Amino acid sequence: MTVGHDETVTDAAVLGALVEVEAALTRAYVRQGIAPAAAAEAVASAGQRVGSDVQALAAASVAGGNPVIPLVGMLREHVPADLRMWVHRGATSQDILDSALMLVARRAVGDIQASLHAADAALSAFAAAHRGDVAAARTLTQHAVPTTLGHRAGMWVRGVRRAADRLAEAGDRLPAQLGGAAGTLASFVEIAGAAAAAELPAVFADELGLAAPDAPWHTVRWPVTELGDALVQAIDAVGVLAADVATASRTEIGELAEGTGGGSSAMPQKQNPAASVLVRSAALRAPQLGATLHLAGAFAVDERPDGAWHAEWPTLRELLRLALGATATAATLAAGLRVDAEALARNVAATGGLLVSERLSLVLAPALGAARMPELVRAAAQGADLAALLSAEPAVRTLADEQGAPSVDAFVAELLDPARYTGLAGRFVDDVVTRKRPAAAGQENA
Amino acid sequence: MTVGHDETVTDAAVLGALVEVEAALTRAYVRQGIAPAAAAEAVASAGQRVGSDVQALAAASVAGGNPVIPLVGMLREHVPADLRMWVHRGATSQDILDSALMLVARRAVGDIQASLHAADAALSAFAAAHRGDVAAARTLTQHAVPTTLGHRAGMWVRGVRRAADRLAEAGDRLPAQLGGAAGTLASFVEIAGAAAAAELPAVFADELGLAAPDAPWHTVRWPVTELGDALVQAIDAVGVLAADVATASRTEIGELAEGTGGGSSAMPQKQNPAASVLVRSAALRAPQLGATLHLAGAFAVDERPDGAWHAEWPTLRELLRLALGATATAATLAAGLRVDAEALARNVAATGGLLVSERLSLVLAPALGAARMPELVRAAAQGADLAALLSAEPAVRTLADEQGAPSVDAFVAELLDPARYTGLAGRFVDDVVTRKRPAAAGQENA
Amino acid sequence: MTVGHDETVTDAAVLGALVEVEAALTRAYVRQGIAPAAAAEAVASAGQRVGSDVQALAAASVAGGNPVIPLVGMLREHVPADLRMWVHRGATSQDILDSALMLVARRAVGDIQASLHAADAALSAFAAAHRGDVAAARTLTQHAVPTTLGHRAGMWVRGVRRAADRLAEAGDRLPAQLGGAAGTLASFVEIAGAAAAAELPAVFADELGLAAPDAPWHTVRWPVTELGDALVQAIDAVGVLAADVATASRTEIGELAEGTGGGSSAMPQKQNPAASVLVRSAALRAPQLGATLHLAGAFAVDERPDGAWHAEWPTLRELLRLALGATATAATLAAGLRVDAEALARNVAATGGLLVSERLSLVLAPALGAARMPELVRAAAQGADLAALLSAEPAVRTLADEQGAPSVDAFVAELLDPARYTGLAGRFVDDVVTRKRPAAAGQENA
Amino acid sequence: MTVGHDETVTDAAVLGALVEVEAALTRAYVRQGIAPAAAAEAVASAGQRVGSDVQALAAASVAGGNPVIPLVGMLREHVPADLRMWVHRGATSQDILDSALMLVARRAVGDIQASLHAADAALSAFAAAHRGDVAAARTLTQHAVPTTLGHRAGMWVRGVRRAADRLAEAGDRLPAQLGGAAGTLASFVEIAGAAAAAELPAVFADELGLAAPDAPWHTVRWPVTELGDALVQAIDAVGVLAADVATASRTEIGELAEGTGGGSSAMPQKQNPAASVLVRSAALRAPQLGATLHLAGAFAVDERPDGAWHAEWPTLRELLRLALGATATAATLAAGLRVDAEALARNVAATGGLLVSERLSLVLAPALGAARMPELVRAAAQGADLAALLSAEPAVRTLADEQGAPSVDAFVAELLDPARYTGLAGRFVDDVVTRKRPAAAGQENA
Repeated sequence: MTVGHDETVTDAAVLGALVEVEAALTRAYVRQGIAPAAAAEAVASAGQRVGSDVQALAAASVAGGNPVIPLVGMLREHVPADLRMWVHRGATSQDILDSALMLVARRAVGDIQASLHAADAALSAFAAAHRGDVAAARTLTQHAVPTTLGHRAGMWVRGVRRAADRLAEAGDRLPAQLGGAAGTLASFVEIAGAAAAAELPAVFADELGLAAPDAPWHTVRWPVTELGDALVQAIDAVGVLAADVATASRTEIGELAEGTGGGSSAMPQKQNPAASVLVRSAALRAPQLGATLHLAGAFAVDERPDGAWHAEWPTLRELLRLALGATATAATLAAGLRVDAEALARNVAATGGLLVSERLSLVLAPALGAARMPELVRAAAQGADLAALLSAEPAVRTLADEQGAPSVDAFVAELLDPARYTGLAGRFVDDVVTRKRPAAAGQENA
Repeated sequence: MTVGHDETVTDAAVLGALVEVEAALTRAYVRQGIAPAAAAEAVASAGQRVGSDVQALAAASVAGGNPVIPLVGMLREHVPADLRMWVHRGATSQDILDSALMLVARRAVGDIQASLHAADAALSAFAAAHRGDVAAARTLTQHAVPTTLGHRAGMWVRGVRRAADRLAEAGDRLPAQLGGAAGTLASFVEIAGAAAAAELPAVFADELGLAAPDAPWHTVRWPVTELGDALVQAIDAVGVLAADVATASRTEIGELAEGTGGGSSAMPQKQNPAASVLVRSAALRAPQLGATLHLAGAFAVDERPDGAWHAEWPTLRELLRLALGATATAATLAAGLRVDAEALARNVAATGGLLVSERLSLVLAPALGAARMPELVRAAAQGADLAALLSAEPAVRTLADEQGAPSVDAFVAELLDPARYTGLAGRFVDDVVTRKRPAAAGQENA
Repeated sequence: MTVGHDETVTDAAVLGALVEVEAALTRAYVRQGIAPAAAAEAVASAGQRVGSDVQALAAASVAGGNPVIPLVGMLREHVPADLRMWVHRGATSQDILDSALMLVARRAVGDIQASLHAADAALSAFAAAHRGDVAAARTLTQHAVPTTLGHRAGMWVRGVRRAADRLAEAGDRLPAQLGGAAGTLASFVEIAGAAAAAELPAVFADELGLAAPDAPWHTVRWPVTELGDALVQAIDAVGVLAADVATASRTEIGELAEGTGGGSSAMPQKQNPAASVLVRSAALRAPQLGATLHLAGAFAVDERPDGAWHAEWPTLRELLRLALGATATAATLAAGLRVDAEALARNVAATGGLLVSERLSLVLAPALGAARMPELVRAAAQGADLAALLSAEPAVRTLADEQGAPSVDAFVAELLDPARYTGLAGRFVDDVVTRKRPAAAGQENA
Repeated sequence: MTVGHDETVTDAAVLGALVEVEAALTRAYVRQGIAPAAAAEAVASAGQRVGSDVQALAAASVAGGNPVIPLVGMLREHVPADLRMWVHRGATSQDILDSALMLVARRAVGDIQASLHAADAALSAFAAAHRGDVAAARTLTQHAVPTTLGHRAGMWVRGVRRAADRLAEAGDRLPAQLGGAAGTLASFVEIAGAAAAAELPAVFADELGLAAPDAPWHTVRWPVTELGDALVQAIDAVGVLAADVATASRTEIGELAEGTGGGSSAMPQKQNPAASVLVRSAALRAPQLGATLHLAGAFAVDERPDGAWHAEWPTLRELLRLALGATATAATLAAGLRVDAEALARNVAATGGLLVSERLSLVLAPALGAARMPELVRAAAQGADLAALLSAEPAVRTLADEQGAPSVDAFVAELLDPARYTGLAGRFVDDVVTRKRPAAAGQENA
C-alpha cells in the first residue's frame, strides 16, 4: 500500500542493524584489547541466528516498547557462558537503538542520494534539450511573461542539487551513539578504564562506518532533526518538480506528460501523472513528520525523556521511507518526461501577444503615453489583432523608424516575439548544465 | 500578549524593509550607471515620507494581500515625474517582498545569534562552576546513575552551539531576490541590456547586505526553509534547557531555580520557572511553523504559486518572533540560574545507594554470583542499609582484601560513592568549556 | 500585512475581553448577594479606564508573560479601597484568560458563521443557476467524465455547511472557566460557602454569554481543541472552493473568474484569482496551528502545565484570525464568481467525445466485444472522428435498431452527448438547494 | 517495533476490507434485483481466494500506488466469464478504497472505544477510591494549593469520556463511498437506471454496516478529518493521564506507579512508567498526522486531487494504529495504577503549611492587615513553624474567639489542614462517578 523502495527501512532491516550494532560494540572492545577475539566471533554468530528470526523478536518487543531488551536476551542465549558478559557490555538500550537508526539512515541516505543524482542528471539533460523552448510563465495561475522550459527545468535542478548537498552533509555527520546509562560512559570507564573508554565511541563508530560523536548526544538530538530537515528538503525539491508536472499535464495545458502515466481502462483518454501524484502525496506528509522530530528534540528532558525519544523511531523511519519513495519516483519521472512542443506553442500564443505586454509597456509606453498603452492592451484582450493595432499607431511607426527597423511590421513582430523576451533564461540553463556542483548561494556569478 | 524582543519583526520593521529594498534597487541602477544619481535620492526621500505612515500602508495592503502594490503607488506620488520611472523599475512584487523578508530575517538572526552566544557563555560558565556537582541522572523519569550538573549543562551548551553554527550558516546565505515577473530578468535585460542585467542582482544584494543569489529563487525556496529549520533548531536547543530547568524546579526536586521566578501574591511558596515556561511554549509551537514553510516550499508551483508563497510571510515572521523571544529569554534564564546544592545531594542520596547499582553489578556480580546481587539490591530497595549488607558479604570482604582496600567498609564506601561513578563527565565539561567553537560531530576528539 | 477582518481578535479586543471578564466575575458575586452592588459598578468603571490604555497594559504584560497580573494591579488602583477586595476575588489568572479567550472566540465564531452562511447562500444560488452546465470532471488532473458546474458547486456547499454546523456546535459549547488556583473552587468556597460557590461558575458564564462548564476544565482542553478543529474544518471547506476556483481560473482553463481579480498594471492580461490565493494560503497554514492546540491539550500536565497552556493563546488567536479572513474572503469570492460558458463547453469538447468513453464502454462493449472498443477509442484519441467511427460499426447499427433509435447517427449523438451522462448531478444540486439544513450523513436520502 | 494492538489496521486487514467492499457492491446489485444472485457468490468466492494472497496483491500495488486496480484484475480472474462484468461494476477505485478505509476505521474505532470505556471504568473506580486523598496541586511545576487525587483522576475521566463521545459520533457517521468516476453516479445510472442508482449507495452502505452518504463525498473530506480529529482527541485525553502519571512517578515525587513498570536489570531501583512513556510518544506524534489529514482535505481539488487523496491512506492508518495502541495501553495503565499514600502525604506536607497560604490570605489577611500576612509566610518559607507563628498573633487569637473555636491552636490547625481546603473536589468526583454519561458542557450542574 506504500510506495516501494523501502527495503532499507523495513522491520527486518532495523532488526539487522540492531544486531550489527551489538556486534560492532564487541568488536570495538576486541580492537582495544579489552575483550578476547572470541567474543566478537561469538556475538557475530549469535547475531546471525537471532537475525533469522525477525518474527520472534518483533513479538518480544511489543511488551516493553523497546526491542533491544529482548534482543540482548536472545543474543545471550546463543553466546557461550564464558563470553556472555561481552554481549551489550556497558551499553544502554539507547546506545544500540540510536546507533542502529543512524546505520539504517546512513544506508537509506545513500539510496536517496543516488536517486537525487539520477534526477539531477535527467533533469539537467532535459534542461539542455529544452533550453530554447519558449513557454508561458505563470504566476498566481495566470500567464505572465514568457520563459523557457529549460529555465523551468533548471530551477528543478537547483532545488534538487541543493537538497542533495544538504543531505550529503547530514548523512556524513550521522554519529554513532555510545554513552551508557546516562551519557557519562561511567560503565565503560569501570570496564576499561578512562583512557580506553574515551576512545571506545570512535572505535565503535568506525566499526559501523558512522561519524565519531564528539560526546554522547542522548539529549542533544540535532543529528536526528538535521537529518529530518534534509529529508524533508529533498522531498520538497522533488515536490516542486511534481507540482509543475502535474499542472503541465492537465488536459487543457498538456505541455508535459509522464513517460508511463497510469492509465484507466474505462477512460483511455486519461494520462494520469501517477508519479507526480505519488511524489505530491509525500510532499504533503513529510513536513509534519519533520515537525514531530523537532518536537521530540525539544522535549528531550532529563538524561532520557519520557516519551519524546520513543516518538522519533517510527517518525524517522516513515520519513526515510517517504524520501526513498519520493526521490526514486522522481528520478523515474525525470528520466521519462515528455514534452508536447505543439501544446507549449499553443499556450504561448493563447493570449494573442499579451504574454509580452510587460515588454510593450517598457518599450512603447514612453512613446505612446501612459493612457494609450492600456487601451490597446484592453482591445487586444477582447480579441483585436494586437500586431495590427500597434502597427497602426503613429508613435510606434516613429519608434520603428528611429530604431532603424526594416518596417513597422517587422519592428512590431520582433517586439511581440516571446522568444525575444526570455531575459537570461538561457544563461541560467547553461549555469545549471555546466556546473555540476553549483557554488552555494551567497557567491556571485562569475 | 507575546514575548517581547520582536522589534525587528514588527509591521513597521517589515514596511521599513520594503522601503529600503525599493531604495536599494534604485541605488543599484545608479551604481551601474543606468539611472541618474538623482533617482536614488528621490526614491530614498520618498521612502522616508512613506515610511512615516505605516497605518496608511497597512490599510492599503489589506485589499490586495500584497503590500508592495500600494507601496509603489505611494512612493511614486512622492517622486518627481521625471524620475518616477525608476521606482520599482523592472521589478515584481516578489522581488521586493522576498528581499525585504530576507533583510528582516538577517537582522533578527543577528539578534538571535547574540542571544544564543550569551546563553552559551552563561551556560559554559555554569558548567565550569558545577563541573563536579554530582547529580542524579534520570531516564524515563527515574533515577538511573550519577552524573554531574556540569555535564548536564554541557549538553545544553552543545545543543545551543550547534544551533548557533547552523543559524550562522543560514543567516550568511540569505539571498536577495531579483528576477522580474517570472525569474528570467527579462525586464532588466530590456532596461539595461543583458550584461548589466546579469550583474544587477549582485549589486542589489550588496546594497542590502544580503548574499548575491546564484539565480532568481522564486520557486526554489530553500533559503526560506533552511532558515526556518535553523530557527526551529535554535528553539529546540533552548527548549531542552527549559525542559530541564522546569523539571529541576519542581517543588519536590528543587535542584534549580530561575533567578527571577514569577511569583504569586496569594501563594508565596511558589517560585514559578516563568522563563522556562515561556521557552517551552515556544518550543511546542515552532516545529509546526517550520512545517508550514516546508509545505509552502514544496507547493511552489508555476513561476509564482497560488497560495504557497503567501503562506510564508506571516509564518516566517512568527517563527522569527518566537526565536527572538525564546533565545533572549533563555539567555536571561541562563545568566540567572541558581543551584540548590543541598537538594542535589538530597536527591542523589534518596535511593540509599541504589543510584550506583549499575556499578555494583559490574564490580561485584562476578564475585557474588548472578543470584545474590539482585537479592541485596531488593533488600536495599525495601529500606535495608546497603553498605552494611554489602560489607557483611564474604565475597565482598575477599574482594576488598584482594584489591588492597584499607577495610571492607572503606571499600564499600568507595564503591557506593556516586562521585566515583560519573565516568567522563568532567572531561566532557572541559571539552565544552575550553573549546569555544567545537568541531562538528564526525570528528574525533583529539 | 495580514488578511483583514480581524477586529475581533486584536490585542485591544483581547484586553477588552479580559476587562469584561473581571467585571463579570464581580457582577456574578453581586447577583448571588455576596458582594455589594457598588462593587460591580466600581470594577466596571475601573475597567473602562484601564481599557483605554492598551499600550500600558501590553507593556506591563511582557515581563510576566501573563497579562492578567498587571491588569488586576491596574484595576485595583482604580477601585475605592473598601471595594478593592472584589477585584479578581478568588480567581486565578487562568480563570480570567481562558474565559476571555472563550469570549473573544465566541464573537469571532459569530463572524465566521456569518461568512460561512453568506458563502453558503451565494454558492447555493450559484449551484442552482448552473445546475445544468455540463463541465469536464477531472481526476488526477485529467478529464474523466462529464459532471455539472452545479454539482461541483453543490459539493462546495456541502463542505461549507458541514463546517458551519460543526462550528456552531463548538461555538455554543464554549465554556467560561472558573476554578480557582487548581480547579477545586476552594477559594470561592472560602469566600461564599459551598452552595454559592457551586453555582458561581454558571452565573459567571451567564454574565458572559458563555456556556456553563460542568466543572473547571483547566487541564481538560477539549473546548480549545474542538474549537480549533472546527476552525480548521471551516478553512478546509473554503480551501476546496479556492482550490477549484484557482484551477478553473488558469489561463488555459478559464472556466471561472473571480469578480474582482487582482490586476497587474504591467501584465493586463492577468486576472489573478487573488481571493482564492489568500484562502489557499490560509488553508496551508491552519492545520499546523490546529496541531499545536492538540499538543498543548495533550501536554496539559499537573493542575496548570509548564508551557502547554501558554502555547494556546497566540495559536488560537492566529487560527481565529485565519478563519475570519479566509471565510470572509470566501464569501466575497462566492458572491462574485463568474462563469465563462464558452470555456466550459470548449473544455468539455476538447477530447472529442472521449469524455464519455466510460459510457461507451458500458453501452457498446458487450456488442462490440472487448477488443474493438479500445481500438476505436485509441483512434479517436489520435484525432479520428469518434461519431463517424462508431456509426460505421455494424454492431452499433444493430444496437441502434434494437433500441428503436431514429437513426444510427442520432443514436451515436445521444451516446456522445456529455449532458446525457451526468448521472444524478442535478438531483444532488436540488438536494443542496432545497435543503437548507442538510441531514447529517448517515441518514438516507428521502 | 511499534505498539501492538493494530491487528485491525494491518496491510492484511486493509486488503481484506477491499475484498469485502467489492463483494458488498455486488451484493447490493443483487439486493436491488439488478445482478443475478450467482454474481454475489462468485465475487465472494473470488475474494476468498485473493484474500489469501496478500503478498501478491501488495507486490502488484507498488507500481500504480493504488491497490484496487490489481485487486480487480485478480478478482476477475477468479470469477466465471459470464459473471465477470459484476466485479467492480460501475465503481471507481476511490469508491472501493474510501469505503474500505471507512470499514477498517469503523472496526478500529470499535476497539478504541472499548479501550476508552475500559480506561473510563478503571479511572472512575480509582477516582472514587481516592476521593478524599489530599494531594498537592501543582501549577507551573510548583505546589499551589491542595487538591485530591480523586479530583485529578476525575479530570482524566472527563477528558476520556468527552473523547469517547466524540469518537462515537465520528464512528457512527463514517459513510460508505459510492459515486463512480466523478461523483455523479453516472455509470450506475447507465447500468441500473436513475431510481435504482439513487438507492444503491444506501444499500451498499447497509451491506458494509457503514452510514449511508447523503451524496458522494469524493472531494468533501470531513468524514476523514472529523474522524482524524476525534482520534487525536482520544490520544490527547490519554496523553494527559500519561503526563500526570509520568510526573507523579518521578523518583522524587513517587505518588503513583504503574502496575507493571518496565524494569532494568542493571538499575533495579527504576520503576519506569513504561506505559505512560508509550502513550506520551503517541501524543507527541498524533496531532501532526491529524494536520496532514486536514491539509489533504483542504487540497481536494477537482473531482479527485493530484496527491492529497493519496496522502490520506497511510496517515489515517497510522493515526488509527496510534490510537489503538495508546488507548489500549492507557486502559492497562489505568487498571494497574498504584498509589503511594505516604508519598502523597509527604509531598502535601513538604512546604510546611504553605500549601494553604491562599486560604490564610483569604481568612486572616483582613484581620492581620495586608503587611503582616506576607511577613509570616516568608518566615515560614524560611523554616519557621507556621502554626506557632499564627497562634502567637493577637489578631488570630481574636478571630478564633469570635468564631467560637475551642482554642487558638485548634483554630489554626483547622485553618492549616489541607483537607479543609479542597473546595468542591469531592463533589466533582461524585459527578464523574455517578454520571456515567455526563451532560455536555454548556449545561449547568443540577
